[in-house]
Amino acid sequence: MGSSKGNLLVGQSGGPTAVINGSLVGVIHEALQQESIGEIYGMLHGIAGVLHEEFIDLRRESPQTLELLRHTPASALGTVRYKVKDEDYERLLEVFKIHDIRYFFYIGGNDSADTTHKVGQLAAHQGYELYAIGVPKTVDNDLPITDHCPGYGSAARFVASAVRNTGLDTIAMGDSGPLKLMEIMGRNAGWLAGAAVLAKERPEDPPQLIYLPERGVSPEQIVEDVRHCYSELGYCVVAVSEGLKNEKGQEISAGAGKVEVDAFGHQRKAGVVEYLAGLVREAIGETVRWDKPQYLQRSFGELISSVDREEAYQVGRAAVRAAVAGQSDQEVTLIRLPGREYAVETGLAPLSEIANVEHKVPAEYINAQGNGVTESFVEYARPLIGGPLAPYARLAKHRVPKRIRR
Amino acid sequence: MGSSKGNLLVGQSGGPTAVINGSLVGVIHEALQQESIGEIYGMLHGIAGVLHEEFIDLRRESPQTLELLRHTPASALGTVRYKVKDEDYERLLEVFKIHDIRYFFYIGGNDSADTTHKVGQLAAHQGYELYAIGVPKTVDNDLPITDHCPGYGSAARFVASAVRNTGLDTIAMGDSGPLKLMEIMGRNAGWLAGAAVLAKERPEDPPQLIYLPERGVSPEQIVEDVRHCYSELGYCVVAVSEGLKNEKGQEISAGAGKVEVDAFGHQRKAGVVEYLAGLVREAIGETVRWDKPQYLQRSFGELISSVDREEAYQVGRAAVRAAVAGQSDQEVTLIRLPGREYAVETGLAPLSEIANVEHKVPAEYINAQGNGVTESFVEYARPLIGGPLAPYARLAKHRVPKRIRR
Repeated sequence: MGSSKGNLLVGQSGGPTAVINGSLVGVIHEALQQESIGEIYGMLHGIAGVLHEEFIDLRRESPQTLELLRHTPASALGTVRYKVKDEDYERLLEVFKIHDIRYFFYIGGNDSADTTHKVGQLAAHQGYELYAIGVPKTVDNDLPITDHCPGYGSAARFVASAVRNTGLDTIAMGDSGPLKLMEIMGRNAGWLAGAAVLAKERPEDPPQLIYLPERGVSPEQIVEDVRHCYSELGYCVVAVSEGLKNEKGQEISAGAGKVEVDAFGHQRKAGVVEYLAGLVREAIGETVRWDKPQYLQRSFGELISSVDREEAYQVGRAAVRAAVAGQSDQEVTLIRLPGREYAVETGLAPLSEIANVEHKVPAEYINAQGNGVTESFVEYARPLIGGPLAPYARLAKHRVPKRIRR
Repeated sequence: MGSSKGNLLVGQSGGPTAVINGSLVGVIHEALQQESIGEIYGMLHGIAGVLHEEFIDLRRESPQTLELLRHTPASALGTVRYKVKDEDYERLLEVFKIHDIRYFFYIGGNDSADTTHKVGQLAAHQGYELYAIGVPKTVDNDLPITDHCPGYGSAARFVASAVRNTGLDTIAMGDSGPLKLMEIMGRNAGWLAGAAVLAKERPEDPPQLIYLPERGVSPEQIVEDVRHCYSELGYCVVAVSEGLKNEKGQEISAGAGKVEVDAFGHQRKAGVVEYLAGLVREAIGETVRWDKPQYLQRSFGELISSVDREEAYQVGRAAVRAAVAGQSDQEVTLIRLPGREYAVETGLAPLSEIANVEHKVPAEYINAQGNGVTESFVEYARPLIGGPLAPYARLAKHRVPKRIRR
């Protein structure tokens, strides 16, 4: 490592995903091929690991472990939810200097891009040579500029599968439970709730209704939509974003008639799906069931999208190549190429344009009624889940004539 | 079909499972080979479909559809939750007679066994030749006599995977969210909650604590268990059965300080996991997260146990063979064979001994503290999920020496 310009430090931040370790492996694999990179360090629990000098030596991990890591969900280095304070940045740079860190890669979402941007700026201000690159990651898919975020495709595949399975369960129940709601991750952006549409093969397949936080909708409208769907089909499966807002832009669960009191008498906000299930049950008088898979959506290692796995790996490699080529203060992006076959290439965008910007589902992806997504959304999202879901059978159901007349 | 003794009728009842269609296909495949069987009819939505003469002709389904059906979750014929009334049985027999039904197969749990038993008894009482056989199905695994129930192994595989994935997610979060609870199906029997143990490869792996409804435990004890685990490991992942009882045998969520009020002011019972999460949060002061995958546990077609799929199919075939051999008023069972390699054969047990009997987790499968399962439970359950979960990587985490002394 005599020719190296310095050491590399990589970390993971924010909510884990099913493929965030793929980006880590991409960074390591590319770094192993670059002569200008000396040690390859991983920070434990993100930027908190830098503040406390908690580093591990990634050159000492075996090739077999790294290969298996591409198939292992959740952040192997540990992650953190910590908003870096102004006074922390000096400390970060002090740690960088003493460990001769010249390459800094932070795999995360909007907040992580902001951290990476500020570290890069401070280093530049102090004349310390540092190549700082952000690596995109979020199941919420809410980063700007990039076509989509690694992590989203696998979470979307889980959501599509979950809605398809619970939808079949609902249809099977018939009159014994024809109404089902599923709450889907995404506090401010409905990308993941929208992906429920990928459960559909035919128009009558679940989900019948999809509600995104971008479009305010009154609980009364939701009840009417369910009533209409139920009277037409005899069942109704609804995908609801956890961050759903009413027509006034207020979160639907908060203070809307529902109070949850814990063991100590404190009031708590209840989830949107429990609230809506109660509302629909009271209004329609049928059994309403709901699912809330929560953290399974971002961690389900058995249902990783092959496209997402590969892209997560490639953004890690691209980050290292960019840094070695002299780039800094940039985020790796995915650029969808024109053409009939789905293909992407990696690009770069200034971190300042990524940091703290939330990219929501645009209006042309939401239907006019605000209770579903459009065909253009389907075209956008379908390639990201990595091939169609496994085929399921449908009985032809040839009826036997009735013999008793009454 | 000139030599046939009569027609066959098959139905599905109770909660769907990921492999209940496998039993249906087993019935059809075996029936297609039996000369004594004429028409092969399926009832739509279980016994309700008999009362309303809603039958489909299963001979007209294609071989390809039937093969794919073995990989398709939920009840393809539709299911029902309907307790058959005394006055219904005459009607059932009337329908049987007019369609010349001589073979009756009902795929379901305890209630379905009761229905099948009563139908068989009434036919015998009236001198109507009928061969009525119950086919076991339930994710709760709570039928007596049989070693286990088809449907359980696949649900157990989902639970083990879900706990492993959300457990990795929890460990990755570190101080930003070290406590996680998952609510698992099973109102009265903890077989499925116990299966969470199959997420473990090493002693420190999640789940750390498992609570079953068979053993009453006070909420205070659960809080203390979590506190102890958290102080030892820095994280704690808990599997909780939905039907958990306190030390007095009362359901933990009911009236235990938690009130949920819907939009119309009606009080509702909240789930055990929400209640316990609030309790732990207040007591320990750390972020507590929870998952509630509900109906995904019994419907997740992407995670079917290969053992369960095959056994579900074989109990269907065995039911038809038994009926054609002249058996009636029996339930097919699974008998585990002695020996180091897991193997089962099918058997028969009188429906009267299955009907309405709940088989709970025996004391020797629950640990002394009441917060986990024993090694003998692991030996019982492990073969049923169909091979180990896919391997995940673990970093060796060689530490880099700190350079800043403070």
